[in-house]
Amino acid sequence: MPIAVTILGNSSAKPTATGHPSAQVVNINEQLFLVDAGEGVQRQMARAGISPLKLRAVFISHLHGDHVFGLFPLLSTLGLYGRRTPLRIYAPRPFGEALEAFLRLFESDLPYTPEWVEVDTTKHRIIFENDTTEVWSLPLRHRVPTAGYLFRQKEPALNVTKYAIERYGLDPHQIVAAKRGEDVELSSREIIPNNLLTYRPYPPMSYAYCSDTNYSARLAKMIQGVDMLYHEATYAASERKMAKLRGHSTTEDAAKVAQMADAGKLLIGHFSSRYKDLEALVQESREIFPATEIAREGTTFTIEEKRIKR
Amino acid sequence: MPIAVTILGNSSAKPTATGHPSAQVVNINEQLFLVDAGEGVQRQMARAGISPLKLRAVFISHLHGDHVFGLFPLLSTLGLYGRRTPLRIYAPRPFGEALEAFLRLFESDLPYTPEWVEVDTTKHRIIFENDTTEVWSLPLRHRVPTAGYLFRQKEPALNVTKYAIERYGLDPHQIVAAKRGEDVELSSREIIPNNLLTYRPYPPMSYAYCSDTNYSARLAKMIQGVDMLYHEATYAASERKMAKLRGHSTTEDAAKVAQMADAGKLLIGHFSSRYKDLEALVQESREIFPATEIAREGTTFTIEEKRIKR
Repeated sequence: MPIAVTILGNSSAKPTATGHPSAQVVNINEQLFLVDAGEGVQRQMARAGISPLKLRAVFISHLHGDHVFGLFPLLSTLGLYGRRTPLRIYAPRPFGEALEAFLRLFESDLPYTPEWVEVDTTKHRIIFENDTTEVWSLPLRHRVPTAGYLFRQKEPALNVTKYAIERYGLDPHQIVAAKRGEDVELSSREIIPNNLLTYRPYPPMSYAYCSDTNYSARLAKMIQGVDMLYHEATYAASERKMAKLRGHSTTEDAAKVAQMADAGKLLIGHFSSRYKDLEALVQESREIFPATEIAREGTTFTIEEKRIKR
Repeated sequence: MPIAVTILGNSSAKPTATGHPSAQVVNINEQLFLVDAGEGVQRQMARAGISPLKLRAVFISHLHGDHVFGLFPLLSTLGLYGRRTPLRIYAPRPFGEALEAFLRLFESDLPYTPEWVEVDTTKHRIIFENDTTEVWSLPLRHRVPTAGYLFRQKEPALNVTKYAIERYGLDPHQIVAAKRGEDVELSSREIIPNNLLTYRPYPPMSYAYCSDTNYSARLAKMIQGVDMLYHEATYAASERKMAKLRGHSTTEDAAKVAQMADAGKLLIGHFSSRYKDLEALVQESREIFPATEIAREGTTFTIEEKRIKR
């Protein structure tokens, strides 16, 4: 049960003829979550073959246009497609006001309800949870209130091995008991310890989205051990002062956070439009954190297997 | 001094992986006007090599998202690019409320002022005018208040021919008088009639943008003699009832308006996403009005010369 992240856009605020602003779809346990929604996100989803009707929820990091202007056209399109299920949108203030104005002026008659859930950008806490998945807010340091999001698979339920079922002739009641984690007493009175009967079908994995933000050591602690990290790197290492001033990170900042968090892999993006040579940027990160990749638009990054802990 | 119309988008509301929603740039007397602003318009301008900083004004037909959602990101970008000149946006109610919410929630600190000019969609009147150009509102028949726009070159000022200047030895005062349309008295007391001295540098031309609308014979009268007409044709001729119900036109409706208006050329677009074969659609229009073209995205249509009146 891998986590897959499809990059729909990766540019910073100044538009280019080739790139789209921030947007990603995170597929975790076959649930699709949209994370940020820069202009053009719905066409980018169409290109990537992702049906917008399958979106389970939306997470918006902050109220800068390059992270959210694509959401409103998408909400309209979901209406045209006849969505009925309410759609939860997790976003900081004042998203509710923007949503209210959008619904009042453009879409007073949608067949479904977009529901705003306010994200407190000062808190690191669980904001979404179901049987298989947790999403945590991550306080980021930008010019306006901004949250990152940490997606975590929960420990999956135990499966009983085919071998054990045959070896011990387990009946349905015994199988259910084993799945609950119990030892099983056979008709022979022999007690088989649970760990001889069961296995975890997959190790729980995690993905963190962190854009836009200044360098934050506190952030690295909150995402400790994350399997894959997207961290913005708007500027080259030489532009440290500019990055700090504008509430952004450099390639080195992103790499340091990945290193401190002991991340499995680092994706960098949100590059300033001034940079044409992205390879030079990724090399700067790799000097500090070798497992760095450019979060190229149109690419799907998959966490297939739990890496072996160093 | 041709009029040039660059099609930036031509799709109807349902987004596709290949097309963009309605947006055009009209170049009239070297002034650039944006007409409708569907999502992605700023990237489409970049692709077409049109600098958004050169926009003189914006005209929005109506408040459906596929005609306006690209405007707000564009307004933000103009701020990033440091525009200082106010930008007038001609649009029906309630555009002012949308602009107010956008500025308050996303762009409280723009370096220029976007100024809304309300368009009364019930009136056919001049809403923009300068020395060379007029723009007229065109009442359209859609599900919400909607205006088309008629761009007209004014009769250009007279030029004095080189031949006359040399032939009669005109001095600067005499040239200025001739440009004002006056006859000129030479030092010999001979009076030269103005029509022997001057010419009109170009015949005034016109372009009408009509989307979205039901068929309207009244509209055809308002644009009588237009040199080029963009008229929506959301549906094939067989879908007349659906078109009427939805406040849209068929290929035949568009052709009839062009025919009644004695237009020079017809561009059709805003096709429903159900149609894959656009050639079949344009053929339907050509049965009635042969000079029909598909308003293909990325194409620039130019009115080079005044056609000879039939």
